[in-house]
Amino acid sequence: MRISELAEATGVALPTLKYYLREGLLMPGESTSRTRAEYAEAHVERVRLVRALVESGGLGIAAVRSVLAALDGPPALSHELLGTAHAALPPPVEPVPAEATEEVRAWLEELGWEVWLDGPLVGSLARAVADARAAGVELPPADLTAYAEAARAVAEVDLAATGRTATPADAMHLVVVGTVMVDPVLITLRRLAQEVVSREALGM
Amino acid sequence: MRISELAEATGVALPTLKYYLREGLLMPGESTSRTRAEYAEAHVERVRLVRALVESGGLGIAAVRSVLAALDGPPALSHELLGTAHAALPPPVEPVPAEATEEVRAWLEELGWEVWLDGPLVGSLARAVADARAAGVELPPADLTAYAEAARAVAEVDLAATGRTATPADAMHLVVVGTVMVDPVLITLRRLAQEVVSREALGM
Repeated sequence: MRISELAEATGVALPTLKYYLREGLLMPGESTSRTRAEYAEAHVERVRLVRALVESGGLGIAAVRSVLAALDGPPALSHELLGTAHAALPPPVEPVPAEATEEVRAWLEELGWEVWLDGPLVGSLARAVADARAAGVELPPADLTAYAEAARAVAEVDLAATGRTATPADAMHLVVVGTVMVDPVLITLRRLAQEVVSREALGM
Repeated sequence: MRISELAEATGVALPTLKYYLREGLLMPGESTSRTRAEYAEAHVERVRLVRALVESGGLGIAAVRSVLAALDGPPALSHELLGTAHAALPPPVEPVPAEATEEVRAWLEELGWEVWLDGPLVGSLARAVADARAAGVELPPADLTAYAEAARAVAEVDLAATGRTATPADAMHLVVVGTVMVDPVLITLRRLAQEVVSREALGM
């Protein structure tokens, strides 16, 4: 198909497609003349992926490029898959310096969570907790622990879905893209669930 | 304290404080002369709140203004509290039109979740699910239901914390600010939990 047909098939405007091409987010089509190139189904899929990562995933161009590099690279060994996936994604919140993570580290150890204690995610968690408290949300340890248990239930669904994929490349796609794209689903479900729980508590 | 001391106490730069004042996000200090105003502890708290909502909460200026109006307004009746809080927040994802929410509505009904089916949150959920699928994340109904159960566990912690507040104004603060500021905590916990579950599955 021509680039105008690619625009039609994906619902993405022509100038945006040209921007994706310039930024290397979309692979070039096959040249059929000096001014024309032919695009295929793989281009449709790539455009949809980029669009979704930018719009719903809220990723910037640099982060999208990093995600695509992880997807296009050689499949990671299964025990490196998650680390490679997480490294391709920007941390959810700007991490605090390692020396400011002590309380969160101690809490993670008490919880029995074996995670990379010097990694950016622990720094992000410390920042998110500190910022919530600065805004007047107390977050007592018992609440944090209950949130962690819910997050663990989510992660079990995530990893089970990855286990059902056919190839290592599919698994990589699901871990990277699923981590970004399911966040908005979970955030929205949380607010709807608040409605449900509140209604029940009020006996409505 | 003077505005320079407010800057020091909050770690927020003077030009940013002046911007908050101009935009009405920070209430004016008490004038003590033509060129000086006096700021108090309430200003420190307000600056910290605005900062947290913008930085970690990712809210724009208009959304912060809407949140502050909800917090400064008369306390909502308890059965209106959550609706007022959600109305003050931007929807997590740009909602799809109501006619595109049919699959999600049917799923919510099957789940037994009594929510506002014509509201923006159902539209946001439909958009988030559609975007994830467009990006190649399948999200079968069984996975969605497991995610919903985890979201419900989170909402129960949210609402229990609200129930422990001393005044309706405190409850309103916690629902509005807690909804925005705990999202980054949950998103980060999810990724850390993926690390935990993956490590356990690999027997490491």
